[in-house]
Amino acid sequence: MVQKFGGTSLGSPARIKKAAKRVAAAQRAGYDVVVVVSAMGDSTDRLLGLASRVAREPAARELDQLLSTGEGVSAPLMSMALSELGIAAVSLLGFQAGIQTDQRHAKARIVGLTPARIQRELAAGRVVVVAGFQGMGLEMEVTTLGRGGSDTTAVALAASLKAQACEIFTDVDGIYTVDPRFVPAARLLTHIAYPEMLELASAGARVMHPRAVEIAEAYGLELHVRSSFHAGPGTIITSEEAIMEDRNRVRGIAHEEQVARLSVVGVPDRPGIAASIFLPLAEADIAADVIVQTASHEGVTDMSFTVSSADGRQAKRILDSVAQEIGARTVLAQDGLAKVSVIGSGIRGQPGVAANMFKTLSGLGINIEMISTSEVRITCIIKADRIKDAVAGLHQAFNL
Amino acid sequence: MVQKFGGTSLGSPARIKKAAKRVAAAQRAGYDVVVVVSAMGDSTDRLLGLASRVAREPAARELDQLLSTGEGVSAPLMSMALSELGIAAVSLLGFQAGIQTDQRHAKARIVGLTPARIQRELAAGRVVVVAGFQGMGLEMEVTTLGRGGSDTTAVALAASLKAQACEIFTDVDGIYTVDPRFVPAARLLTHIAYPEMLELASAGARVMHPRAVEIAEAYGLELHVRSSFHAGPGTIITSEEAIMEDRNRVRGIAHEEQVARLSVVGVPDRPGIAASIFLPLAEADIAADVIVQTASHEGVTDMSFTVSSADGRQAKRILDSVAQEIGARTVLAQDGLAKVSVIGSGIRGQPGVAANMFKTLSGLGINIEMISTSEVRITCIIKADRIKDAVAGLHQAFNL
Repeated sequence: MVQKFGGTSLGSPARIKKAAKRVAAAQRAGYDVVVVVSAMGDSTDRLLGLASRVAREPAARELDQLLSTGEGVSAPLMSMALSELGIAAVSLLGFQAGIQTDQRHAKARIVGLTPARIQRELAAGRVVVVAGFQGMGLEMEVTTLGRGGSDTTAVALAASLKAQACEIFTDVDGIYTVDPRFVPAARLLTHIAYPEMLELASAGARVMHPRAVEIAEAYGLELHVRSSFHAGPGTIITSEEAIMEDRNRVRGIAHEEQVARLSVVGVPDRPGIAASIFLPLAEADIAADVIVQTASHEGVTDMSFTVSSADGRQAKRILDSVAQEIGARTVLAQDGLAKVSVIGSGIRGQPGVAANMFKTLSGLGINIEMISTSEVRITCIIKADRIKDAVAGLHQAFNL
Repeated sequence: MVQKFGGTSLGSPARIKKAAKRVAAAQRAGYDVVVVVSAMGDSTDRLLGLASRVAREPAARELDQLLSTGEGVSAPLMSMALSELGIAAVSLLGFQAGIQTDQRHAKARIVGLTPARIQRELAAGRVVVVAGFQGMGLEMEVTTLGRGGSDTTAVALAASLKAQACEIFTDVDGIYTVDPRFVPAARLLTHIAYPEMLELASAGARVMHPRAVEIAEAYGLELHVRSSFHAGPGTIITSEEAIMEDRNRVRGIAHEEQVARLSVVGVPDRPGIAASIFLPLAEADIAADVIVQTASHEGVTDMSFTVSSADGRQAKRILDSVAQEIGARTVLAQDGLAKVSVIGSGIRGQPGVAANMFKTLSGLGINIEMISTSEVRITCIIKADRIKDAVAGLHQAFNL
């Protein structure tokens, strides 16, 4: 089985020893165990702090070298803690574990796994501790997988090794119907379907990274999200079929703050115009999220979409030059927005869900700035200062 | 040229930026520059502290993984600091730099260098920052070179790349006639010959690691030891021929505290007996230093030698069982000793030197426990509590 421990679960030597006990228990229960570790607690912030004190804009390649030392510390420490418990263990860095990626520093994707070394160590009876978040590109370049990268490492390894189970140990108890810090009545879900989890993750529930959920779904791999601090059932992320009875109802509320809206106004409406707007953003690795295009009127249209606030300024700069090229009238930018979503398999087929959502927000006097939907999600963009009310109101309205 | 910076020289982001300015100056002067970095200041202690909190006796292999992150941090930071100065730079870890070692974790030796990547980066106009102290064994195992390992990395790279110069930046001004913390009258040497430096290093002057000096001598590579904090001439380590005028006189005093003596008493004097004593020590990687065998008397002899205090207990344990096997009477151990040496090319041919040394110690009322000599060194073992007096007295006696 694969067990993944996040940074908070490894925040101190004492916590590493505690996590090692869970690993030891799994091994003693007869499993071959691969442990994937994140960097200890605040080590990433510490490393970024050092970088910011020597350079204003460190190159992504050098940041990857630097940040990969975070797991380079936690992995051998976990291995040592296991040995101390009498469990034979060996730590492997990304390049030793055979995790091959592309060359996109800071946001690399796994392109291949060569788990020969891992399998040999497992066959020799050892627990294998793999440094998460990192891989090796061409020419032995160190790469990192970006936010949530250790989840991706764990799921990719579990799929590649055909693991019987993949446990994600984290600092929360599992997946809740809503962020429990916002709504005390939040309820822990025992199961959630991949598409629901994907939408929850994309919509801002940061427990699991969407990419990791996608890989798990592609390989039909069940993920078990659990607390590393106490026993408890946690949440199993699995296929929709496995949790049929919950179809067609809202299962959770997700939200995301720090959202900015950009509008390209007065766009000549001709084929290819959307590509000419979004390709330059994609090249700058800026993800455009909720996208709304108004109906064309006299040959011109408006194109609005959201980005994370962090990308707002750069997106505006790019769009200003795009607008000139394509002959659009102007570019408007608005920050201080937030995103709230209701999520559940098959809810698009249930018109009552959308109506209930809009009615609830309107009842709270919250204006809806934009709307977007998917098969399993309805999202509204609202002002950030009302997000807490919106989340709490929706949680109640859908009887979660 | 190769420039090596020690841990103190890289102890903070500000110091890294200062070191980067020296590198930038060398590059602007027209050199292709390879920078070798140690771990930042106290990072090794910090990492060892973490290890000690998860395991009592961490495996050497896992310690290597852990400790190698020290240079894994300083190397990209140096690269970033150079970029900030407008100097194109790239950092390489041991395995990326092509530094191949044997498998002896914690004390690996370099067995090969494949500098293709370094050469390619230099050809592209980049400064190459190499993580010192670390290499790659078979199967991409991370190894470390042991104490002074970054010096070894620097000298091995300078030799392999046929560098025009190899500068060792450190927290002292160069090589002194004696430890300046002991004797304020200590004088900075402008030149010192390899064999003298080797003896100084082995005898406890920790500025340069002996292994690095050996490699430099083998390749005829001049080393320039300089302060990273201020300008100054520093000391050039070179061949004896280059500093002929100083032959046949004492050039420096070295000392080492933390010395223990072991004596195997009543050893049956037959061929191979020395090997049966020292082989088991060598296998445990314990270096026996000053060795004295008393004249054989009625078929038995006594064998005494020194080890570092840190190895004392383990050496005693090994020798106890060896003594039983070979039928020796007993093993005696004594700690709390120190080593003091006078060093200079060709001094063995000058009987006055040894006489002056013994007379000086005797004049101070210091008892000599053991004596050993080499071509360029005379060493006395004395009680540790008199080492300061011995060093100061000898420095004066030889008019240094």
